[in-house]
Amino acid sequence: MDEFLVAPDPADPRLTARLAGVDQDGQAIETSVVMERPLTLFLNGQEIVTMMTIGDYPDYLAVGYLLNQNMLRPDDEIAGIDYDEEIETVVVRTARKTNYEKKLGKKTLTSGCAQGTVFGDVMEKFETVALDPDAVLRTSWLYALTKKINTTHSLYLAAGAIHGCVLCEEDRPLIYMEDVGRHNAIDKIAGYMFLNGIGPERKIFYTTGRLTSEMIIKTVQMRIPVLISRSGFTAWGVDLARRADLTLVGRARGKRFIALAGEHRIVYDADQATVEEESPKIRRKASMEEEENAA
Amino acid sequence: MDEFLVAPDPADPRLTARLAGVDQDGQAIETSVVMERPLTLFLNGQEIVTMMTIGDYPDYLAVGYLLNQNMLRPDDEIAGIDYDEEIETVVVRTARKTNYEKKLGKKTLTSGCAQGTVFGDVMEKFETVALDPDAVLRTSWLYALTKKINTTHSLYLAAGAIHGCVLCEEDRPLIYMEDVGRHNAIDKIAGYMFLNGIGPERKIFYTTGRLTSEMIIKTVQMRIPVLISRSGFTAWGVDLARRADLTLVGRARGKRFIALAGEHRIVYDADQATVEEESPKIRRKASMEEEENAA
Repeated sequence: MDEFLVAPDPADPRLTARLAGVDQDGQAIETSVVMERPLTLFLNGQEIVTMMTIGDYPDYLAVGYLLNQNMLRPDDEIAGIDYDEEIETVVVRTARKTNYEKKLGKKTLTSGCAQGTVFGDVMEKFETVALDPDAVLRTSWLYALTKKINTTHSLYLAAGAIHGCVLCEEDRPLIYMEDVGRHNAIDKIAGYMFLNGIGPERKIFYTTGRLTSEMIIKTVQMRIPVLISRSGFTAWGVDLARRADLTLVGRARGKRFIALAGEHRIVYDADQATVEEESPKIRRKASMEEEENAA
Repeated sequence: MDEFLVAPDPADPRLTARLAGVDQDGQAIETSVVMERPLTLFLNGQEIVTMMTIGDYPDYLAVGYLLNQNMLRPDDEIAGIDYDEEIETVVVRTARKTNYEKKLGKKTLTSGCAQGTVFGDVMEKFETVALDPDAVLRTSWLYALTKKINTTHSLYLAAGAIHGCVLCEEDRPLIYMEDVGRHNAIDKIAGYMFLNGIGPERKIFYTTGRLTSEMIIKTVQMRIPVLISRSGFTAWGVDLARRADLTLVGRARGKRFIALAGEHRIVYDADQATVEEESPKIRRKASMEEEENAA
């Protein structure tokens, strides 16, 4: 499979705005700012949720959201996806009618609405997933992936204040999605995989965001055995990753990284002497932009 | 009012864990990781939500969440707050019984569950808020605040992967809360203000997180006229701030900042020649830690 089936398009004028303001000297300035628009999702006749998104892939976002909420099943047949830009809605139509009302009722009482975390029957699925124990993460792949991703043109480098997620295989980044919420970036990848028949086998997931419980739950649900981040861990995220035997790699910058779960999949094949540290220029740029990324 | 009525307590053993793992050389290491635990909130007899939190101030978090969701009114009388650490629940009891069922029903259909954004009747309140047009932000205060906040001991500096919010007045940081979600940090401040009778007049709000629509909505709901962040903007966040006449300052680091709304409140009283840039050491440390903060 080639690299970058999907890559960011920072030149798309719908994704950023030029806004006027003032700087620390009171001088007028103009700056680039990412767009954030509402998108209301319907499953058949039922309104499900209004999401805030940059709006580049409403179809993938809609399908991925429904999959990751267990409102769509992997064997569901999608009869159509209708996106209406003017009224900011997307309707997913399925052959089978899902029991969304029961799920919505359950979600209201048990999930972290407005907290960015989903529980209820999502955890029931989590407990049943078996990740491929024979998948491996070569450190040579890890170093190649982070270098390619960090040097790819993105909204992240152009305007900041955005999250990136990348589906990878071996040393190849395949699908690189960005959005104002990391939920959306991962859901867009789930939707793309479903609609294009890409399976989770031997895949590696990269995120700019923290390795919280929610990121671990979604990665495991998508049955991807390896998760990598430049950022840090939470204790419960590590606990969940250990229970699911997910390989969890954090603080991956230049030569450095830390693994706190599923270490058995790591193959130390890179010659450390030949791995470059991030150049001061990239590191400074990345750090400046990653500050923006604090959600 | 003195500085730091509430400050982070990175030495509290309940807030971080030491976890074992491996590094890039396959060597065994130990590292500090922030805790993240569920807290289920009840309003009187009704289960409202399960939140993920570091767990340091369940009472302030519970009350602030209910206030910012408009489930509590400013004139509501709280009869009691019962926190049970063992079963991870907090119950808020009120004299008046709120119409939570109607609100929960509305939230399910219109809010961004799992997206970190709340709409519905929250926006109705937003439209009615008038922020104090005579409040000012002196640049000398801004520089003093950011320096004090950046050099205060925090979980952010000790373990990363956490958000910070600070309620300030003039050049004094008053209440500095941290949590795994920025929602929780701001809600804990709202709860503290309500339970301790601290009003929003002349206050300044500082956050490590991005200036998204949700941060603007919560700050305006709390009637605080000035919002400052180290991080960046989204276009809709700026639009909402302009509609509410909120003074919105972003990318505040060292001498630099940008204001994209409410610029009329800024008083340029600092002598730029005397303002220190962040020292390379602090900047590097802050950048490293803020990377962790990408949520």
